[in-house]
Amino acid sequence: MMEGVCHVIMAGGSGTRFWPVSRAGRPKQFLALVGGLPLIRQAHDRAAAMSGAASVYVAAGLAHKHMVLEALPGFDASRFIGEPFGRNTAPCIGLAALELRRSVPDGVMVVAPADHVYTNPGDLVRAIHSAVAAARAGEALVTLGIRPSRPDTGFGYIEMAEPAAGARTEGARRACRFVEKPDAATAKSYVASGRFLWNSGIFIWRIDAILAALEAFAPDVWKGLARIDAALGGPDADRVVREAFQDMPSVSIDYAVMEKAPDVLVVPADPGWSDVGSWDAVAELNDTDAAGNGVVAPDGEVLQLNASQCFVYSTTGRLISLVGVSDLVVVDSGDALLVCHKGDSQSVRSVVDALKARGRGDLT
Amino acid sequence: MMEGVCHVIMAGGSGTRFWPVSRAGRPKQFLALVGGLPLIRQAHDRAAAMSGAASVYVAAGLAHKHMVLEALPGFDASRFIGEPFGRNTAPCIGLAALELRRSVPDGVMVVAPADHVYTNPGDLVRAIHSAVAAARAGEALVTLGIRPSRPDTGFGYIEMAEPAAGARTEGARRACRFVEKPDAATAKSYVASGRFLWNSGIFIWRIDAILAALEAFAPDVWKGLARIDAALGGPDADRVVREAFQDMPSVSIDYAVMEKAPDVLVVPADPGWSDVGSWDAVAELNDTDAAGNGVVAPDGEVLQLNASQCFVYSTTGRLISLVGVSDLVVVDSGDALLVCHKGDSQSVRSVVDALKARGRGDLT
Repeated sequence: MMEGVCHVIMAGGSGTRFWPVSRAGRPKQFLALVGGLPLIRQAHDRAAAMSGAASVYVAAGLAHKHMVLEALPGFDASRFIGEPFGRNTAPCIGLAALELRRSVPDGVMVVAPADHVYTNPGDLVRAIHSAVAAARAGEALVTLGIRPSRPDTGFGYIEMAEPAAGARTEGARRACRFVEKPDAATAKSYVASGRFLWNSGIFIWRIDAILAALEAFAPDVWKGLARIDAALGGPDADRVVREAFQDMPSVSIDYAVMEKAPDVLVVPADPGWSDVGSWDAVAELNDTDAAGNGVVAPDGEVLQLNASQCFVYSTTGRLISLVGVSDLVVVDSGDALLVCHKGDSQSVRSVVDALKARGRGDLT
Repeated sequence: MMEGVCHVIMAGGSGTRFWPVSRAGRPKQFLALVGGLPLIRQAHDRAAAMSGAASVYVAAGLAHKHMVLEALPGFDASRFIGEPFGRNTAPCIGLAALELRRSVPDGVMVVAPADHVYTNPGDLVRAIHSAVAAARAGEALVTLGIRPSRPDTGFGYIEMAEPAAGARTEGARRACRFVEKPDAATAKSYVASGRFLWNSGIFIWRIDAILAALEAFAPDVWKGLARIDAALGGPDADRVVREAFQDMPSVSIDYAVMEKAPDVLVVPADPGWSDVGSWDAVAELNDTDAAGNGVVAPDGEVLQLNASQCFVYSTTGRLISLVGVSDLVVVDSGDALLVCHKGDSQSVRSVVDALKARGRGDLT
């Protein structure tokens, strides 16, 4: 167990990539896409295994509070950090840091997305321990960087500096640049160089260090946070948080702080990370049978005849039969069905757009 | 209108080729696979247009009587001919002939399957008129033969004789041979010869002629029919029909009579006939859009993105979205879903077998 460490699971995302199962009211992190439990539950349990359940906080939209409590049996609602509006990660992390400071002013805070999957969680734990040690040693803002397995153009990259003689902590390297999603040629050169890591969205820092950095580098955000800090614990806290969020810019912690702060470290890791970005990714992360077919249908039944390389995800009790087909993703929800060619699952967003255009927003 | 002509729509079939929409309790003839109405309704209405609704009888299993009445608004239940057990077509036709003889002893009887589709119904009407004239002229048993458009191995064939000088009726030719489903090479030679027609399952004969033929060529069937004839109209009719059907052999009219009777004529026709033998056939019979996609989903909605040559049949109100797929048949029923590659829809029977083997007969 790590003492003096708090975890903040960021569960504020919404998204349309997992239609028809994910909806505005039930985003991805609440789905058991991989591993048999909601992704948020897996994120919570990973954190609890490192530092104890009492150290784990969850930040999410207030509208999703009931879903968080439903997904996390035994979770103490007092550790729910409610975002009145989605304002990206910087305001969310700032609010969480203020809340945590009230309990553990000298603590270290680990921030992790609720909707990522790790096929090699042992290395995740190793890297977080390493990052916590680096964060404790000073004012550094630490992030995990995933060693890239391919020149993916869908992620941000972090360039790390050559290890200096006398680097402060085993495993941590100075981060010299954060870059947005690159084009294909750039991504290829990044991977070839060996100096670039994928931006994992996992951050580790002392609570006071991130608050100081927000004050220094994100004055618009800090202005709202200062109002909130003055009200927290008082009778007007909810109203003040709402008003402050209303006024704060929607900005990521990467843009607001990480790209600007001088003392940023990155711990390279090989945790088998996936941001589970599409149904194709879900298909790849789940086990398959000898014919390459995968099934996630806890209440349903799937019957395949001469089918191969197909993935079925069902939240219904219906029977699904695949005959003579290959390379399909079939997703069955209560009121809508998706049949998608593998490799085309990025187009699911377009289905959602088309439904809205048709006046069928009730299905999105 | 043809006077003195009765129509018997044979709706006794059950079948597993249209799973998951057709079930033991709702066979194919009750489905609106093509044309927006149940196939039995279309068969009924075609017959009614020829001879008036009062001339149309429906023969089906007693268990399906309520579905027949539901599918045929205004149909007089007294013209329902109930088969207590399925005994193939010879006992059914015999029972129907006995019933009809009580009303129109000198009438002509047109027997047609309830579950076939005609894309050129004008030629069907022409051929039936021609066949009725041929049947009225004597004792001949007349059938329609479909001019084959391909060497299909799934149908029986009828060989017609060269037209004799002095043939009795325009359009009718002597049938010299009924053959079961041939192999591919034989089918090819049949089609090339120009002398072979597909066996349509449509028969036209005087009521007294078919009864005489059953007596002469199918003594086992006739024995039961004689018992029934003695009881019809009396208080024990239902019981006697049940007992007689119990004892009668299950035999087709082709085998029991047509292959043996000496005076059999065939009227060649080009009615755009289909026996609607599979989901592939249903896909072919329905209209498609520019991308080759067809949809039958009266209560539902289908959204296609970059899909081609797909066919969707849905009895539900759910939204179905196809993305980046081609050559699929997607069939959505309340409790089961089929996703099948076009060309593989014959395998649907295997799905039903597999479900039974799994103890999921409730879905078949």
